[in-house]
Amino acid sequence: MTVAAKSGIKKVVLAYSGGLDTSVILKWLQVEYGCEVVTFTADLGQGEELEPAREKARLMGIPDEHIYIDDLREEFVRDFVFPMMRANARYEGDYLLGTSIARPLISKRLIEIAKETGADAVAHGATGKGNDQVRFELSAYALNPDIKIIAPWREWDLTSRTRLIEWAEQHQIPVPKDKRGESPFSTDANMLHTSSEGKVLEDPWEETPDYVYSRTVNPEDAPDTPEYINIDFVDGDGTALNGVEMSPATLLEALNELGRKHGIGRLDLVENRFVGMKSRGMYETPGGEIYARAHRGIEQITLDRGAAHLKDELMPRYAELIYNGFWFSPEREMLQAAIDLSQKNVTGTVRLKLYKGNANVVGRKSPFSLYSEKVVTFEDDAGAYDQKDAAGFIKLNALRLRLLGERK
Amino acid sequence: MTVAAKSGIKKVVLAYSGGLDTSVILKWLQVEYGCEVVTFTADLGQGEELEPAREKARLMGIPDEHIYIDDLREEFVRDFVFPMMRANARYEGDYLLGTSIARPLISKRLIEIAKETGADAVAHGATGKGNDQVRFELSAYALNPDIKIIAPWREWDLTSRTRLIEWAEQHQIPVPKDKRGESPFSTDANMLHTSSEGKVLEDPWEETPDYVYSRTVNPEDAPDTPEYINIDFVDGDGTALNGVEMSPATLLEALNELGRKHGIGRLDLVENRFVGMKSRGMYETPGGEIYARAHRGIEQITLDRGAAHLKDELMPRYAELIYNGFWFSPEREMLQAAIDLSQKNVTGTVRLKLYKGNANVVGRKSPFSLYSEKVVTFEDDAGAYDQKDAAGFIKLNALRLRLLGERK
Amino acid sequence: MTVAAKSGIKKVVLAYSGGLDTSVILKWLQVEYGCEVVTFTADLGQGEELEPAREKARLMGIPDEHIYIDDLREEFVRDFVFPMMRANARYEGDYLLGTSIARPLISKRLIEIAKETGADAVAHGATGKGNDQVRFELSAYALNPDIKIIAPWREWDLTSRTRLIEWAEQHQIPVPKDKRGESPFSTDANMLHTSSEGKVLEDPWEETPDYVYSRTVNPEDAPDTPEYINIDFVDGDGTALNGVEMSPATLLEALNELGRKHGIGRLDLVENRFVGMKSRGMYETPGGEIYARAHRGIEQITLDRGAAHLKDELMPRYAELIYNGFWFSPEREMLQAAIDLSQKNVTGTVRLKLYKGNANVVGRKSPFSLYSEKVVTFEDDAGAYDQKDAAGFIKLNALRLRLLGERK
Amino acid sequence: MTVAAKSGIKKVVLAYSGGLDTSVILKWLQVEYGCEVVTFTADLGQGEELEPAREKARLMGIPDEHIYIDDLREEFVRDFVFPMMRANARYEGDYLLGTSIARPLISKRLIEIAKETGADAVAHGATGKGNDQVRFELSAYALNPDIKIIAPWREWDLTSRTRLIEWAEQHQIPVPKDKRGESPFSTDANMLHTSSEGKVLEDPWEETPDYVYSRTVNPEDAPDTPEYINIDFVDGDGTALNGVEMSPATLLEALNELGRKHGIGRLDLVENRFVGMKSRGMYETPGGEIYARAHRGIEQITLDRGAAHLKDELMPRYAELIYNGFWFSPEREMLQAAIDLSQKNVTGTVRLKLYKGNANVVGRKSPFSLYSEKVVTFEDDAGAYDQKDAAGFIKLNALRLRLLGERK
Repeated sequence: MTVAAKSGIKKVVLAYSGGLDTSVILKWLQVEYGCEVVTFTADLGQGEELEPAREKARLMGIPDEHIYIDDLREEFVRDFVFPMMRANARYEGDYLLGTSIARPLISKRLIEIAKETGADAVAHGATGKGNDQVRFELSAYALNPDIKIIAPWREWDLTSRTRLIEWAEQHQIPVPKDKRGESPFSTDANMLHTSSEGKVLEDPWEETPDYVYSRTVNPEDAPDTPEYINIDFVDGDGTALNGVEMSPATLLEALNELGRKHGIGRLDLVENRFVGMKSRGMYETPGGEIYARAHRGIEQITLDRGAAHLKDELMPRYAELIYNGFWFSPEREMLQAAIDLSQKNVTGTVRLKLYKGNANVVGRKSPFSLYSEKVVTFEDDAGAYDQKDAAGFIKLNALRLRLLGERK
Repeated sequence: MTVAAKSGIKKVVLAYSGGLDTSVILKWLQVEYGCEVVTFTADLGQGEELEPAREKARLMGIPDEHIYIDDLREEFVRDFVFPMMRANARYEGDYLLGTSIARPLISKRLIEIAKETGADAVAHGATGKGNDQVRFELSAYALNPDIKIIAPWREWDLTSRTRLIEWAEQHQIPVPKDKRGESPFSTDANMLHTSSEGKVLEDPWEETPDYVYSRTVNPEDAPDTPEYINIDFVDGDGTALNGVEMSPATLLEALNELGRKHGIGRLDLVENRFVGMKSRGMYETPGGEIYARAHRGIEQITLDRGAAHLKDELMPRYAELIYNGFWFSPEREMLQAAIDLSQKNVTGTVRLKLYKGNANVVGRKSPFSLYSEKVVTFEDDAGAYDQKDAAGFIKLNALRLRLLGERK
Repeated sequence: MTVAAKSGIKKVVLAYSGGLDTSVILKWLQVEYGCEVVTFTADLGQGEELEPAREKARLMGIPDEHIYIDDLREEFVRDFVFPMMRANARYEGDYLLGTSIARPLISKRLIEIAKETGADAVAHGATGKGNDQVRFELSAYALNPDIKIIAPWREWDLTSRTRLIEWAEQHQIPVPKDKRGESPFSTDANMLHTSSEGKVLEDPWEETPDYVYSRTVNPEDAPDTPEYINIDFVDGDGTALNGVEMSPATLLEALNELGRKHGIGRLDLVENRFVGMKSRGMYETPGGEIYARAHRGIEQITLDRGAAHLKDELMPRYAELIYNGFWFSPEREMLQAAIDLSQKNVTGTVRLKLYKGNANVVGRKSPFSLYSEKVVTFEDDAGAYDQKDAAGFIKLNALRLRLLGERK
Repeated sequence: MTVAAKSGIKKVVLAYSGGLDTSVILKWLQVEYGCEVVTFTADLGQGEELEPAREKARLMGIPDEHIYIDDLREEFVRDFVFPMMRANARYEGDYLLGTSIARPLISKRLIEIAKETGADAVAHGATGKGNDQVRFELSAYALNPDIKIIAPWREWDLTSRTRLIEWAEQHQIPVPKDKRGESPFSTDANMLHTSSEGKVLEDPWEETPDYVYSRTVNPEDAPDTPEYINIDFVDGDGTALNGVEMSPATLLEALNELGRKHGIGRLDLVENRFVGMKSRGMYETPGGEIYARAHRGIEQITLDRGAAHLKDELMPRYAELIYNGFWFSPEREMLQAAIDLSQKNVTGTVRLKLYKGNANVVGRKSPFSLYSEKVVTFEDDAGAYDQKDAAGFIKLNALRLRLLGERK
């Protein structure tokens, strides 16, 4: 009895990049599961040609109506990146979650396409050691609890590069020359970031070699002159760069270009994976880093303290949920509801100085500013604030501490 | 009836800098309260000569045994800055709490000196609009619930610069020429940082003028060549720079020098004060910024995920407590107990690259590292991790989401 | 110069109960502030006749158009009590916030009436030691930042019962015989609860005397036979009792009657006031206690674990915000948004057993139940759950602990 | 090749109750793994004779030196139950974690015995659907990362009662008459509680039948007269009942007797398991319920507000960690450190009234009380509290809300 018969899977939608690994998976699904394959290739702004994926799929016998290539760039930034940025989310203090936030969108489309094509399963090329398998699968199960999921890297025995390539050749899959050897590291890219990990990065004491970086110039090679930019926000989302209104994806793309030029957004991190191990990653998030700083800048003058501090306390949990793959969970949605409510009137303009790896907020203004020069001033405030009120404020805040002190 | 009679205060310990403002306060206490004054001047590494304070105090009739000038630098860094750094504390995402963390130490000494000299009150020169009054007074009350506190800025009517100077001249207090006009901004300094606020900084849209900075070179003027340094940690605290063991204060001083040179640790922030208003401040924390990043770096490989994430969730509250003046509170001490427990084995070496405002971790190693190349590797892991386990892990994590999905 | 002239207050809206204390306040405002007074008496289901308040106000010269008596019972339960119950809010583990939740509604009406009548101030009869002053005033300021607030208990010198009564008699305010002596305790009542504090309750070692209770029978005197009831919920709010649909206030009133009969909802508590002291209170929340338990009961089968645990973690903060008077704050609204989102499908029927002080959930059912007998069963589950998945689940959850264990 | 050969396991320590299920497991380990078995039977106060377990083990060929029967009652209460009670831990608002807290202690002894006897594996009788497997195994792995774990219920095919009994008879294991049929529910018991689940309890709408309860009388059958008791605490732990000093286990046992008599501590709950499903359980925690309420009672007067509120916010996470099996984790230990620090001076006496299912605190006193009658009194407080301070306190707390209000 074949696997297909055992599993009962008749049609599977594969997250297909067109690269060697997912091409092997495509063929392996055909051979081992004996089932129809639908390919789905997403344009998330990873900066690669996607049409070759169509050709390769055709070569492996996929009919045109089963080849999906979708431009998801606007949806990605508008419905995933921006909501996350409203939370000022950073995992473990630093990581802007560039890979994590793309996975639920891919799963969402996989499930939609499965419905459109009558497929009963989805498949992905993530390995059994990483977070991405979890993110793909939790999202898929949340959106369709009956879906079947195939994760070839956890099932097959092609566990070394050599065996994978042998298998590819046995099955007439073309293997590009530069894929024959081991890649010195592994990458993932989308409009928000590029991540690299593995191989040459595995010793966390060794500095990341410069050739690993692909999205940013080395700060040392960045311009010697700072560049000032203005970003406009409306209700918590970026809407314009230097006064020019832009769609979400267009804005992020423009910030990526600025970040690249000024060497902004490089991060070398040892992080804790959901599956229980530590890994060392290198991230480049040029536009995202600028955007994240700008967002905090506009919040500084438009967000009330109570809202701001609550957001700061909720953020680590929110970031953890995204990192762990729980985008489509009630608790992430609850936190999002709280965060989104706070973003009303997070509107105005932030000025940043970009210079050799730095993206610093140097000014912010807003028609909805809560900053009151009248109240805060060292000068005469015309009675806006009665300094004597502070005495009572302190006295009552101190009362419990004094009662404690008396006990000692 | 004089204020002294009303208040019943006989002797007061004044936090005395030797500057014009606290000199006026000294005299005003003598005149208005008719009480003995004890002066206390702390060396917190603010980089000023303190002996002139002694002379000025003598000139105003303070007997030598009532003039305290204490070097608190090691205590400051060892018992206040380092414990706070163990928490990775940043207020509102960015501020390293340089002013906030110094206040409880000053209050602690004020209360100790009050006990030594039999004083029944303490006095400080913080204004009624700021956070420092709260920090001074909450700490003082916590340590001595019966202490009386005099905050002249909330009491007197010398509310303009002109009146203050007139009063000073009427009472034979020398007014230096450069203090006659308005200072363009107000500063506070200690070994951890220098802060500036007010006047020219009051418009948050205007970039902070370069002349406001005093502790760091402009990144544009910093060396064109990066500098690499190693910092050693033992159980969560820094112990050595480039292999040379140093006391806490010596280490921080050395990092300050490095930070100054490379333009590291400048921060322009609009923050929320505990007293309810927003203010705009400029901070320079050169050594602190380097140290904070290094500490996170060593935690990356030595701290378990559960501990690390709990710390991240507790941090905003912890930082808020320090900012608001609750250092000597049960809840800060509880959080500290949790944090300190986590720091066992946060031991090892972090390598940083300093360059024009950037202080980036580029390597970390530890005899207690939890990073396992054996487990994480993309290569054959000799059975250290069974990728098939991930299937069950995902299945059970997904179960509740699937049950939810079925309901929809 | 009169206080009125100094304060500039021309017209004030007074939260007026018609009792002796607020009658004295009414007169005192007329005498001391020389301003017009508008009286506002709210029916929150406190179980008192309100028309006498109208008569008394008239006797003190308030024109009819300045006498407001409003039935707020439905608004109170629908817009304040029920939203709070969705959060399962209990302050310090026990207190159902019966007084706290009424204050913002009263303030809201005070501010609305101030607008309608062109008043520039509001006044209340809460003392300077309690929480209610804070709750009234924070709400009032949030809704109208320019409002002036008069809190006579913090201003006047009628600080003993004797002086208050003397002043009343001097100003021709009738003093009922039973108000001449000291009341043995002080109470507050509304549809959700009755609270008592002070005097005979001030020693927290002494048991609350039975005569203090007014809303519930002593459990020892309650029926010897249990009573079973069913409560229906739709999207988190109660809608029916024993199959009979009811409005929010009607439902709460019916539950109050049941709670009274069975001696449910008595609470003797020493709590921490926002103003910094501990106080001992006695609360009776008969219907609220039943409702609160029923709400948890329906959540047990309809709320996902992620949502439920997030709610439990947010609850203490949410309860604290209400207790401290921050109902009209961005952070309370943010938490409410999160909580409300979770309540979709918190729909179904809860069965409770009421018996001598106990209100225990004994059954719950829902068309949206997430409880799956198929999955959980000890019997054959027909493959709904693969026990082997648990092995991988445990293995990956254990991985970080094993790496830690290896270090030790 | 036998399983033993494959697994390489030579000796296994089995958590052995002496009942039918673990007797079958014992034999199955001998047959299927061909390895030596060491039995460990813990006395956790479950109220069963343990010597029969020794006889049964001998009958199955276990040598005396491989039969461990340990009285862990004092260690259980002192080192597990009491620390947990310091946190006021309740899972999902209600459950006192009676089963959860016993598992780490059993695992601790399993690992100790494995070390003493040179065993390379441990085994337990928990099923693959429940939480207990997770708790046993996470604890075991944390304490010995190299240990092997056998969970027969996840491995074997004896998945129906009939097959289990057949297998037992084939292997000469005596099957008591009353074990031949299906048990109507499944129980776990220790000194803290008895839990029951499954079968007749699987419909959450059906009331738990009275015959399921074994540790408490039905409140309807409890005495008609209330009983008052005093419990003393020292630094957060119970030390005496009605003035008689007792060890932890003796105290809990005495409270169990009182709880049984008065029908206290019954709980019918639908809870969320860590493995992702909801289950319905019935718990009886007679002494624990009394103790938990008493502990909150003594905290009311001895714990500062800051500490109390922080504890309340941390509690749900702490309870979740215990429920999920993470007792031996850094994050549980961090939370414990914070909680334990707060318990200094949680010392004094609590008075409770026990009556037909109710255990209500009616009085509390302490030499370290923070409750100040002098401050809180409605009477003249001799200046202990200045009501005018409240004005400033409110004004500054309101400031940010007013600035917000102005924006609207």
